[in-house]
Amino acid sequence: MTALAEEIARVYGTPAVVIDLDKVEANIARLQAACDAAGVANRPHIKTHKSPELARLQVAAGARGITCQKLGEAEVMADGGIDDILISYNILGEEKLGRLGALQRRVRMIVAADNPVTIAGLPKAAEIAGRNLEVVVECDTGRKRAGVETPGEAVELAKQIAASKGLTFAGFLMYPPETGWPATQDFLDTANAGLREAGLEAGIVSTGGSPNIPNIGKLKGSTEHRSGTSIFNDRMQIAAGVASLEDCALTVYATVVSRAGPERGILDSGSKTLTSDKGGLDGHGYILEYPLARIAQFAEEHGFLDLSGSNERPNVGEVVRVVPNHVCVVVNMVDRLVTVRGDKLIGELPVAARGKLT
Amino acid sequence: MTALAEEIARVYGTPAVVIDLDKVEANIARLQAACDAAGVANRPHIKTHKSPELARLQVAAGARGITCQKLGEAEVMADGGIDDILISYNILGEEKLGRLGALQRRVRMIVAADNPVTIAGLPKAAEIAGRNLEVVVECDTGRKRAGVETPGEAVELAKQIAASKGLTFAGFLMYPPETGWPATQDFLDTANAGLREAGLEAGIVSTGGSPNIPNIGKLKGSTEHRSGTSIFNDRMQIAAGVASLEDCALTVYATVVSRAGPERGILDSGSKTLTSDKGGLDGHGYILEYPLARIAQFAEEHGFLDLSGSNERPNVGEVVRVVPNHVCVVVNMVDRLVTVRGDKLIGELPVAARGKLT
Repeated sequence: MTALAEEIARVYGTPAVVIDLDKVEANIARLQAACDAAGVANRPHIKTHKSPELARLQVAAGARGITCQKLGEAEVMADGGIDDILISYNILGEEKLGRLGALQRRVRMIVAADNPVTIAGLPKAAEIAGRNLEVVVECDTGRKRAGVETPGEAVELAKQIAASKGLTFAGFLMYPPETGWPATQDFLDTANAGLREAGLEAGIVSTGGSPNIPNIGKLKGSTEHRSGTSIFNDRMQIAAGVASLEDCALTVYATVVSRAGPERGILDSGSKTLTSDKGGLDGHGYILEYPLARIAQFAEEHGFLDLSGSNERPNVGEVVRVVPNHVCVVVNMVDRLVTVRGDKLIGELPVAARGKLT
Repeated sequence: MTALAEEIARVYGTPAVVIDLDKVEANIARLQAACDAAGVANRPHIKTHKSPELARLQVAAGARGITCQKLGEAEVMADGGIDDILISYNILGEEKLGRLGALQRRVRMIVAADNPVTIAGLPKAAEIAGRNLEVVVECDTGRKRAGVETPGEAVELAKQIAASKGLTFAGFLMYPPETGWPATQDFLDTANAGLREAGLEAGIVSTGGSPNIPNIGKLKGSTEHRSGTSIFNDRMQIAAGVASLEDCALTVYATVVSRAGPERGILDSGSKTLTSDKGGLDGHGYILEYPLARIAQFAEEHGFLDLSGSNERPNVGEVVRVVPNHVCVVVNMVDRLVTVRGDKLIGELPVAARGKLT
């Protein structure tokens, strides 16, 4: 148990969600360098950190703007001084359109749409803003998540946007599977051909995903990339081959509160801290001090350790550091992050956009 | 889409986590009646609702006190006027022991311990409080979670507590599996025999679990029961046979934001709202309006619907109500609950103890 772990436990108690700012800055610089090398603008997704302070660091490092998934996140970011925001989400309903319009008065807003109903609502926001709203068409390029499934549909929506009072067709939003670039290229090329026929052009072609960082620029015609997780990294990024353990900037400091049996142990971090997002991995996190201990199961405030494979076993009262499987959902549990640099405690950072559900 | 759904979407936006206070009050009354009928005190676990206001309703209905899982929860509850609090958790470390002592100055505190290290620390809290702290020994009666595994160990810890300056041995904390009552009875009887030999007595014998409500009082010698989830209920409680859909007081109001393909749809509620806690069930929630639609998968802010089994399919923009699989972790995501009575919007209730990680 390091002096830093003792200090964090004494000052903040555990569990504590801790980020190493040296690593955060290195991760921000690495993403920016990858975008710069590919000649693609960097528009990091703030869903991972939800902190205007970290968003400002990303912009200071060279990011063109940011990506948000929620209107409430965008509001917090605009309040924090970010002035170029893409919401990669269908914004629907009177309440949200009013807020979107108010936001668009203050900062550059781009929103995504993948259906005619969403597009039909957006002019209300533009009207409130008193200026045109940029809209990108979300395209499903193989993940079967959000987005239109064919280039033809994408072009139809682009035309609808271009024909809508107060809206500007701004381009395409894509999230290619890591192995799906040729199909994505076909989709984009076909859609672009359709746009040309309609006298339109995609000013923005946005790709996404931290696992896609090695692929930035691979899509010919892409102009921007959205990466969220890479600011902190996690076990899923390691599994995807795009980060090492040393690149993981966030760890959960947890106390061993019980050694229920000789081969068992219990951490004070369960599904209400580390969440049940397993990301297809074995176990619920990686304990830096006990790499062979397995976080086998969760209760809400308990992490149940299987120590059978580990000769080294922690004592009750010991503080350990856990690298989460999925860091984005862990940050979303807390109101503040504890900050360190190497072995020095720095302070805290509010997760200001947490809890902005709408 | 009901007028209430439209109103909630207009006033609060979606996703909105909504509780029906009529159902909440009925659920509170039902638990109290079950405890009264068995002659066992009711000590509901507030981990589910994290609201002092709802805790006060539980006490007003007859609960002896409450159960918390975190010191931070207990602090919020004490601030909210609750004066008899069991923390069913090992409290460890200087920071927490100081806070526990401060709390114990103000209200009756009982804490659990399942190991000698925890017990060795607790006198510090008692010293700060200036009066004895009641400690129950947590016993593992078959779930392989927290707790000592044998009656002999339980008695040893009871003796250690009784011999510790400032501590009072208060009894046993148990969480019997729903089918494990005979084994739990054996455990308790053997432990009680050991206590008698040592001149000790278990004033509190606490059982737990909402699925165990039908079993309250089954353990001869039990004095209290802890139930959390039953205040709201969820799909897991329905699956356990202890609640009906009509007993589910909490629903997540979600908007259909996309119909990505003919057999697909997307809700604006994903793992950052409903969480990835599946509780061993199929799908991630039950949509009241579309019972045959399956919430097949989550992204952080997307719930991906498989509509292939449902002839009725929602349109983009429609607001639906989702009964979560596991309600405790859903409440833990939000800072407020929207309150209704039947089809009437009432207001909001802060989830005051949310985010109190330590």
